[in-house]
Amino acid sequence: MPKISARSIAAPASPIRRLYPLAVEAKKKGKKVYHLNIGQPDIPTPEPFLRGIREAKVEVLDYAPSPGLPEAIQAVQAYYAELGFDLSPQEILITIGGSEAITFSLMVTCDPGDQVLIPEPFYPNYLGYARLSNVEIIPLTTYRAEGFHLPPRREIEAHLTPRTRAILLSNPGNPTGVVYTEPELDMLVDLALRHDLFLIVDEVYREFVYEGKHKSILSYPEAADRVILVDSISKRLSACGARVGMLISRNKEVMAAAQKCATIRLSAPTFEQLGLAAFMADPHHREIIARMIEEYRVRRDVFCEELGKIPGVTFRKPEGAFYVMFGLPVQDSEDFIRWMLTDFPGKETVMFAPGAGFYATPGKGQDEVRGAYVLKVEDLRRACAVLAEGLVLYNEALAKTRG
Amino acid sequence: MPKISARSIAAPASPIRRLYPLAVEAKKKGKKVYHLNIGQPDIPTPEPFLRGIREAKVEVLDYAPSPGLPEAIQAVQAYYAELGFDLSPQEILITIGGSEAITFSLMVTCDPGDQVLIPEPFYPNYLGYARLSNVEIIPLTTYRAEGFHLPPRREIEAHLTPRTRAILLSNPGNPTGVVYTEPELDMLVDLALRHDLFLIVDEVYREFVYEGKHKSILSYPEAADRVILVDSISKRLSACGARVGMLISRNKEVMAAAQKCATIRLSAPTFEQLGLAAFMADPHHREIIARMIEEYRVRRDVFCEELGKIPGVTFRKPEGAFYVMFGLPVQDSEDFIRWMLTDFPGKETVMFAPGAGFYATPGKGQDEVRGAYVLKVEDLRRACAVLAEGLVLYNEALAKTRG
Repeated sequence: MPKISARSIAAPASPIRRLYPLAVEAKKKGKKVYHLNIGQPDIPTPEPFLRGIREAKVEVLDYAPSPGLPEAIQAVQAYYAELGFDLSPQEILITIGGSEAITFSLMVTCDPGDQVLIPEPFYPNYLGYARLSNVEIIPLTTYRAEGFHLPPRREIEAHLTPRTRAILLSNPGNPTGVVYTEPELDMLVDLALRHDLFLIVDEVYREFVYEGKHKSILSYPEAADRVILVDSISKRLSACGARVGMLISRNKEVMAAAQKCATIRLSAPTFEQLGLAAFMADPHHREIIARMIEEYRVRRDVFCEELGKIPGVTFRKPEGAFYVMFGLPVQDSEDFIRWMLTDFPGKETVMFAPGAGFYATPGKGQDEVRGAYVLKVEDLRRACAVLAEGLVLYNEALAKTRG
Repeated sequence: MPKISARSIAAPASPIRRLYPLAVEAKKKGKKVYHLNIGQPDIPTPEPFLRGIREAKVEVLDYAPSPGLPEAIQAVQAYYAELGFDLSPQEILITIGGSEAITFSLMVTCDPGDQVLIPEPFYPNYLGYARLSNVEIIPLTTYRAEGFHLPPRREIEAHLTPRTRAILLSNPGNPTGVVYTEPELDMLVDLALRHDLFLIVDEVYREFVYEGKHKSILSYPEAADRVILVDSISKRLSACGARVGMLISRNKEVMAAAQKCATIRLSAPTFEQLGLAAFMADPHHREIIARMIEEYRVRRDVFCEELGKIPGVTFRKPEGAFYVMFGLPVQDSEDFIRWMLTDFPGKETVMFAPGAGFYATPGKGQDEVRGAYVLKVEDLRRACAVLAEGLVLYNEALAKTRG
């Protein structure tokens, strides 16, 4: 039998995928599982978006233009204009989710063997895209005790090599919830200029900021030709299944290359692009987003308050996104999550994403988990109560086994 | 400024993209352009599919499962069952168009520097996917006079090297309209077994067969672990903009690797998967497809009849798909197409895809164009009349310039 490729073998399998069957089993046994493991909001998708799809006048569902439907590109322009950024249509490419924008960014900036520096812990699919396209990820470790903010400049520079092509990061951060400060961004821009690097910044959580102020990487005109912005409507429109993202750059060469990538895959889905156009045409669209962000702020506060009461749980309150990356008083958080799904005695249980999956450095994050506060406040409280009980029972059970 | 990647530079820019602005200009001047250049059907998308989208009960538009919505996978199973193939859900992956199924196929079978053998002329995006993923395409030239059927076995074998991982082909063929015969497929299967190759077969035009009988590559149980089938609803549901395709294989290792690729890009768009499920639930779905195929049969016959009347135009009537790859009495078909858009004096003009874009061998296909018979019969007749007149005037103009 012919062999499959080394790169597809190297692509990481999600630890969550290994754990899911256990969650399914638990539910079959009548257990309620609080899913804090995935960044899938429970907030209803805004009605204007859904109406835009239902009422779309489509007779022949033909290919959308590869760079995006003009209506969708205009909607993105309008959204960025509201943020104070004036973009031309040529600076915007509609992608199939933020996912594709990341793939295109790596394809356009890196050849096989090239390196991209990423602060870890990071969104695990970055590693997946990189492995499939033979790009090497150089992790730059950040720490829970520092709220996952960046290390000093000289430490970052120590990670750069002649093969480094780009720095990739999400701001606000997934899984960390970090919102990078202005001095941190200034430093990144300066590093990119000095070392001739691209800055690929994933701002899909841009609206989800509760402390301080988010500064978009678009605010740096001096770095305009280094910046590739990755964005998506998945989170701010609670429309993960729409698969509408965008790649934005003022670098003409980058955009021409990204457009070629887009031509090769033909087009992004039509209906969801029309949904985005309808959403932006609704006069209340900013209020809809603002209301949702307020709900997340309350959730963050409640989740952090409840987590803070649990003995041995350690974290710094995150500034943005909808995640908390926190430490548990266990040695192997994946084993703990597994135990919560299979052995925890209550009628309810809780699922988190194991921390190690967010690090490229082996051995890191084994006592951490990522919790996504994507449930209602009362469910978050229950989930934390279950977690607290689980930790006690798990450690007791472990002590017994070790006897 | 940092450099963009060599692979994104190597990815081919579509010649059609260069010509499009000229078509837009022509239309601005009030000219009617018959677009026979793109495989975009004009047939209305079936109502049950569109209704499935309009009436979808979606409150939170969440990520679909990475391998596809269960409803969509069942719809694909049902479709294949009608063709006589019994597939398990694990053998089916819903992809974002046939495009993504091709990308995944290359990713899973090839590492950078590996080779894939493809009969040329071929669908140009194969080259795009290959270049972006650093896979080398080895073209196997086929000829118009032979209806683009395969060369003898020893000639194919002469193209294989230790780096050849797969043979990739579309059946029926785009742009050739060839439907491979049973002996041709038997030979390919035998080659794959003997030389330990994967067979990646793109059957998106499966239903579009007017002569002989299409044999699916799934009909070869002895090659089950070599076969990766690429398919899409774009053509047979006249739903190119849906971006719903599929990758099918009975090779468990291939499917596990393809599923990892799918997990990394999260999910395919939800609404269009629901559209497919609704279409397959309609009791008349086979009739809808059959009626459309009959329309294309008439178009093929008319288009070939009219083309046959034009002096100097050469082709063999194709057996399938909705394309004719034909020779023109010109030296540079791209120049001719350009002239038709800019200089042809009539109120109407016609656009084809230049032949050279379908070959990887430099210099091939320069007197050829691909015509897609995706318009109504009366428009096809008019387009051929315009073409005939254009050829005379173009060659006269050319003779004068050289005069």
